[in-house]
Amino acid sequence: MDLMDFCRYPIIQAPMAGGATTPQLVAAVSNGGGIGAFAAPLLSPQAIAEQVDKIRALTSRPFIVNLFVLATPQPAEEEIRRAQELLRPVWEPLGWSELPLPNKWCEDFHAQFDALVAAKPAMASFTFGILTRAQVERLHQAGIYVIGTATNVAEAQAWETVGADAVCAQGLEAGGHRGTFIGAQDDGLGTVALVPLLADAVRIPVIAAGGIMDGRGIAAALALGAQAVQMGTAFLATDESGIHPLYKERLLAASQAPARAVTRLTRAFSGRYARGLVNRFMDVMQPAESQVPAYPVQNALTGTIRAQAAKLNETELMSLWAGQGVAMVRAMPAARLLETLVAEWRQASI
Amino acid sequence: MDLMDFCRYPIIQAPMAGGATTPQLVAAVSNGGGIGAFAAPLLSPQAIAEQVDKIRALTSRPFIVNLFVLATPQPAEEEIRRAQELLRPVWEPLGWSELPLPNKWCEDFHAQFDALVAAKPAMASFTFGILTRAQVERLHQAGIYVIGTATNVAEAQAWETVGADAVCAQGLEAGGHRGTFIGAQDDGLGTVALVPLLADAVRIPVIAAGGIMDGRGIAAALALGAQAVQMGTAFLATDESGIHPLYKERLLAASQAPARAVTRLTRAFSGRYARGLVNRFMDVMQPAESQVPAYPVQNALTGTIRAQAAKLNETELMSLWAGQGVAMVRAMPAARLLETLVAEWRQASI
Repeated sequence: MDLMDFCRYPIIQAPMAGGATTPQLVAAVSNGGGIGAFAAPLLSPQAIAEQVDKIRALTSRPFIVNLFVLATPQPAEEEIRRAQELLRPVWEPLGWSELPLPNKWCEDFHAQFDALVAAKPAMASFTFGILTRAQVERLHQAGIYVIGTATNVAEAQAWETVGADAVCAQGLEAGGHRGTFIGAQDDGLGTVALVPLLADAVRIPVIAAGGIMDGRGIAAALALGAQAVQMGTAFLATDESGIHPLYKERLLAASQAPARAVTRLTRAFSGRYARGLVNRFMDVMQPAESQVPAYPVQNALTGTIRAQAAKLNETELMSLWAGQGVAMVRAMPAARLLETLVAEWRQASI
Repeated sequence: MDLMDFCRYPIIQAPMAGGATTPQLVAAVSNGGGIGAFAAPLLSPQAIAEQVDKIRALTSRPFIVNLFVLATPQPAEEEIRRAQELLRPVWEPLGWSELPLPNKWCEDFHAQFDALVAAKPAMASFTFGILTRAQVERLHQAGIYVIGTATNVAEAQAWETVGADAVCAQGLEAGGHRGTFIGAQDDGLGTVALVPLLADAVRIPVIAAGGIMDGRGIAAALALGAQAVQMGTAFLATDESGIHPLYKERLLAASQAPARAVTRLTRAFSGRYARGLVNRFMDVMQPAESQVPAYPVQNALTGTIRAQAAKLNETELMSLWAGQGVAMVRAMPAARLLETLVAEWRQASI
């Protein structure tokens, strides 16, 4: 199967964990001729099945289900106590006397993977790590098209080796979590460099992600050698996006003052580098960033803080994931955004 | 004058200080229908005049002369002693008992500027800072087209305000020094995000730089809204490039092992962030990076080390500036590279 067998337009809406990619958003994009992607990394196996059913009730078109490839950690009590203490500057202002511990550090990946295979979406994408060849074969036997994520050449080659059907080239511009899994240090490759490097290095289709916000970005990505684009931030302010209304407002404010729209990579929220709008949480935690526990421990520890901040409408303590192109974000129904992107892309390609 | 009045193809060879942009390289690019750029930041006023004469002897086509906009520093003795001590791990292996001090920290910018105006190149470009409106007018009165450098929207708007004719959008992928001059922290915008943001924010032409290595990159940059591209690393391994033969070899080695080609931004060489191939100098100095004096003091202090390293053919102690697309670098005459780029660009635009 070719990537373009799944869609009319080479536009994938990126999976964004944390509630952004509602079944409504995924279905609207797939129904519109793109490919919607549902972010399932934070969901239980049962919730994955339920959400896939909801998407299927809204569209008969192909869509993607996305997971983080992740081992369940067993952090030492001492590490947790230290991490709770490091986070004091962001939970104390909430009036708490201590930081409550989460029920679990993360969902069990193998159980999630089983649920994904059982749900049989047309496509699945993975980040944070790599599948084994056997896992890819299991997906293929279930008729699922497999997309890996790469931030450098070695990762793309690794995904090709285990049998992935396509690879998403995640440029440094991208919002949310970096998918880096090979190399102690993130090379930080921007989309303009990464996409042609991967297109030269692997035979499977390359999907370009990072900083692509409109038809100009789509035309550019295809010129660089990508077969399709994956756009996250561009869809964050659509009507169907499930993010907090004030988070949406912060994104749209960036388009009013592009000279001041600043994102940064931070480990503070989750223990893994992710890009978001700079806010107080990031600034206050910056000195401790190198000491916080790795994903998913830090992510689980800050989850209660961020949930409480959302309840209190306090965006300064929420994670406001956004890519470098955030100042170009637009608020409209997802179907209309997709139409607009296609029209702009055709214009830019003339 | 429109940018395209100066060339047949929208391809500018980037100015690269330190000897890369020889009169032969600049002339070959301008004669070939692009625009060559001569890096003059490290040259005395007299040397600028002499080099411009050499270029003129080789081409009658327009070319760019580039300067850093820079104030001459007056560092305290104590700061210098501390900086010499921080550099001990890279000068002691050379067998020295102390690090010799340079004759001067930098050339006087105003004297360089006078020499540039007197030399009357068709075009001039500037980075590290911004000119006053009066300085831009002086250039215009001499018939010189003025190009600023911007790494974010605010900088591009500032250049437009002082009257620049065009602005070069320097994406994070770019090799060599970052041109950031507004904002305490570099936003680190990649080319895919930066170019459309600037194209939307200013009316003057935007030139895209950073990660552009071949015709795919050119087509992409123009789709993003740029009127031309500026390519540095792509020209570093041409026959006319004046860099050390072993530096050229290191660049070409990157194209043999793209999975391992890694560049990083560092302040260690010059006191200003610049991107180059990772080597021992960068690694050894990494812990002290935040403490070294600002440009040009650190640059002058490490100059003797790097000159000695070049004499000893020791690339691990040289500055090996390179952009993120370095694995796509090609060794050939500059005129042939330009022809190849144009042919590829036409192919990618179909």
